[in-house]
Amino acid sequence: MPPEHKAAAKAKAVVLLSGGLDSAVSLAIAASEGFETHALTIRYGQRHQAEIAAAARVAGQRGVVGHDVVDIDLAAFGGSALTGGAEVPKDRSAADMAAGIPVTYVPARNTVFLALALARAETLGARDIFIGVNALDYSGYPDCRPEYVAAFEALANLATKAGVEATTEGKPRIRLHAPLIALTKAEIVKKGAELGVDFGVTLSCYDPRPARSGKGVRHCGRCDACLLRKKGFAEAGIADPTDYEA
Amino acid sequence: MPPEHKAAAKAKAVVLLSGGLDSAVSLAIAASEGFETHALTIRYGQRHQAEIAAAARVAGQRGVVGHDVVDIDLAAFGGSALTGGAEVPKDRSAADMAAGIPVTYVPARNTVFLALALARAETLGARDIFIGVNALDYSGYPDCRPEYVAAFEALANLATKAGVEATTEGKPRIRLHAPLIALTKAEIVKKGAELGVDFGVTLSCYDPRPARSGKGVRHCGRCDACLLRKKGFAEAGIADPTDYEA
Repeated sequence: MPPEHKAAAKAKAVVLLSGGLDSAVSLAIAASEGFETHALTIRYGQRHQAEIAAAARVAGQRGVVGHDVVDIDLAAFGGSALTGGAEVPKDRSAADMAAGIPVTYVPARNTVFLALALARAETLGARDIFIGVNALDYSGYPDCRPEYVAAFEALANLATKAGVEATTEGKPRIRLHAPLIALTKAEIVKKGAELGVDFGVTLSCYDPRPARSGKGVRHCGRCDACLLRKKGFAEAGIADPTDYEA
Repeated sequence: MPPEHKAAAKAKAVVLLSGGLDSAVSLAIAASEGFETHALTIRYGQRHQAEIAAAARVAGQRGVVGHDVVDIDLAAFGGSALTGGAEVPKDRSAADMAAGIPVTYVPARNTVFLALALARAETLGARDIFIGVNALDYSGYPDCRPEYVAAFEALANLATKAGVEATTEGKPRIRLHAPLIALTKAEIVKKGAELGVDFGVTLSCYDPRPARSGKGVRHCGRCDACLLRKKGFAEAGIADPTDYEA
C-alpha cells in the first residue's frame, strides 16, 4: 500500500495531552493502535505553565498531525492548589494520598477537558478520544474512575451529531479510550518504555522549579505527582531520567 | 425571619445565561424557586457578541449575586455557522427546522457549557445548575434532549467531590435543572411574563445587526431563533417588544 493511501485510511483520534508521563504514554498507545493523532492541550490557569511546553515537546516527538492549545481560565473560579488556591502538599505517604480528595483536585477538570476534546473530535470528524487517566495510582480524584469514563462516553453519544448518526445511520459510536485506567504507575512506565516514549521530555510535577542549568524545569520530587512518578520507575525497574530537586 | 438570616439560608444555584429569552426565563424560575442565583455566561467566539451584553442586562435586572463571563475559543475548532463556519440560514419552515441538525449547531456546546457550570458550582459549593434548554422547539440540537440532561446529571455526580460526598456522606446530589425542557416557546413566553421577565433586554437572534437608533441591536427576524421567538409571542398572545428588521 502506498504511504499516502495508508495515511488516508487512518481513523482520527483526539488525544488529551498534558505533557505529563501518563498522557505521553496514552498518545503513544493511540499511535500504536493506528490512529492519526490530534493532540489537545488545555491551558487552565494552572500554576505549572511549564506543562504546556512539555506537551509541545511530547507532541513534537510523536508525530501528531495537529496540536491545539485551548485557553480557559478555571483559576477565575478558585478552589484548587493547582490553580493557586492553596499550597501543594509535599512528602505525603501512599496512605495519605489514598485517604481522600486532595487540595490539588481541580473542580470538574476532566469534564471540562473531555467536553473540549468532544468539541474538537466533532469538528475533525474523529470518533475516538484518548485520556490518560488512571484509577489505581490516581491520587484520589473522582473523575479518574472507570464509572466516570463510562458515563462520559454515554453522554458524548447523546450530546453530539456524531452520536445521533451512530444511532440513526449505523455509523461508529464515539469511544472514550482510557488505556491506562487499570494500570499501576509501574505498568504505565513499562508500557511507555516499550513504545519508545522519551520520558525525559515529560513533566509530572505539581510544583516545578527552574533547572539548575537555567534551561527547562526540575521536578520538586516531593509532591504527590513526583512521588508517584518515582515509585513508578523504581517498581518498573527502569532508569528514571527525571531531574528531581529532592 | 430577619432578611440576613433568610439570605444565609438560600441554596446557591449556577444559572447558565446566554442573554436569550430562554435563559432569562430559566434564571427567573431559579430565583422564584428560592435559589441564590449565580449567572455564568460563556463567550465562545460566536458571531453574536451582542449576546454577552444582553446577558449582562438580564443579570443586572434579576438581582443575581454574581455573574461570571468565561472566555473560550470554540471558533478555533470551526464547524458551526454560529462561530463563523457557514452562513446562518434564513426563512426556514418549521418542517425544515425539524428535519435535522442545522449548521448553527455548535459542536458539543452544551457539554462545554455544563462542564464549566459544574466547575463553577463546585467552587461555590452549589449543588444546583440551571440550563434553559428546550426539547420541543429546539431546532434540532441533540444536546437539548431530556436524555442528554439526565446523562449529564449522572456524570456530574460521578465527576465531582460533591457527588462523592453525596454518596459517602449523604449530602444532596448535584441536580441539573432544565425547567423549560418540556415547554413550547409560547409556554416559555407565558411563564416569563408571569415572572416579570423584561423580554426587551433579551437577544435571541443568530445574526443581529445594529439598531436604527445606533444603540443596541436589532433582531434579523429571519433566522431560526427569530422565527421561533416570533411564533412564541404570537401563540402566547403576548405583545412582542422585539425590534425585528424583517
